[in-house]
Amino acid sequence: MRIVFPLYDRFTALDAVGPYEILSRLPGAEVVFAAVERGPVRTDTGALALTADAALSEIGHADIVVVPGGPGTEAAIFDETYVGWLRQIHSGTRWTTSVCSGALLLGAAGLLDGPATTHWYVKDFLPTFGSAYTPERVVIGDRIVTAAGVSAGIDMALTLTARIAGEEFAQAVQLFIEYDPQPPFDTGAPAKASKAIMDQAVELLKA
Amino acid sequence: MRIVFPLYDRFTALDAVGPYEILSRLPGAEVVFAAVERGPVRTDTGALALTADAALSEIGHADIVVVPGGPGTEAAIFDETYVGWLRQIHSGTRWTTSVCSGALLLGAAGLLDGPATTHWYVKDFLPTFGSAYTPERVVIGDRIVTAAGVSAGIDMALTLTARIAGEEFAQAVQLFIEYDPQPPFDTGAPAKASKAIMDQAVELLKA
Repeated sequence: MRIVFPLYDRFTALDAVGPYEILSRLPGAEVVFAAVERGPVRTDTGALALTADAALSEIGHADIVVVPGGPGTEAAIFDETYVGWLRQIHSGTRWTTSVCSGALLLGAAGLLDGPATTHWYVKDFLPTFGSAYTPERVVIGDRIVTAAGVSAGIDMALTLTARIAGEEFAQAVQLFIEYDPQPPFDTGAPAKASKAIMDQAVELLKA
Repeated sequence: MRIVFPLYDRFTALDAVGPYEILSRLPGAEVVFAAVERGPVRTDTGALALTADAALSEIGHADIVVVPGGPGTEAAIFDETYVGWLRQIHSGTRWTTSVCSGALLLGAAGLLDGPATTHWYVKDFLPTFGSAYTPERVVIGDRIVTAAGVSAGIDMALTLTARIAGEEFAQAVQLFIEYDPQPPFDTGAPAKASKAIMDQAVELLKA
């Protein structure tokens, strides 16, 4: 089972690494990090690079694709090499998925055929691509799966793992990564945060 | 504020990337991924490499150190370059932290001076280093902070962010990464999992 993470400049690291840590444990998983060109790809902070071991042009088939989000989405939606690859690879995938603003890349490729979720900060862009924002953490369609912002990719990948390999297996992976979350605050979604917290988060997102 | 992630061969990616995604948003954060030698460092699955932009020998000071865990811990505890660097850098840090089996590396450096947490799978090794396992998700000492397995680094980093930059700021970062966890199962800790799930998780950990 080939699982491909197509990276691009200024993606958000956790969007990709959260699902990777889970999906890479699937039986028979063959994980490939790829990008338009091989080599290190810098994340949004500039302080971290993940290696793309393959060029997108070298990958003609994938069973699962996980598209991360991040501020680099803004440029990547106009990169026809990237978006065209998504469109082409999707014709043969079992699951084409996104985390965070990665949903906009699925949208740019014309793949959003129903309601979707994304990072709350970019939700108003979904209608541009013929979709509608659903304030859910994970939205599962026939073949398209979208997750909300950044950390939501973890919940998405565990849900997908249960579909693919069964609930017992997914529970074992959840125990493997000791995912028994105890967030220090209950402000992780817009509906739960004050205006002051929201304003501060927006400032951080603009930085 | 310099935040260093000392990597080593076969570390677990999420152990590092979870805390990175949060701590990198601290005001004035300067994040450095480092290793004994510069260059790509492969994670435990072999399918992902993160770039070490600096050699440990080039880093003489850090405010925060985050030591990831992973199966590579087993070799790294005998790597005097790595462990010696931890011992030396700790003399000047404000917070020296670990995620998952990274606690064993703090132990090998002689830095565990009280109860600590780690991945449940390696908890019996803590007494070897003069510590005792506490089945908590995050254990905060005067300067040493340990987190449980893999995903626990996210909770640890948010807790630390609140200490460093205040609760409002930490809440904004939590909203930024949309950390409103909705795990599909409630089996993310040993006390919550059946023996069958535990056995399957152990098989995955041995793979």
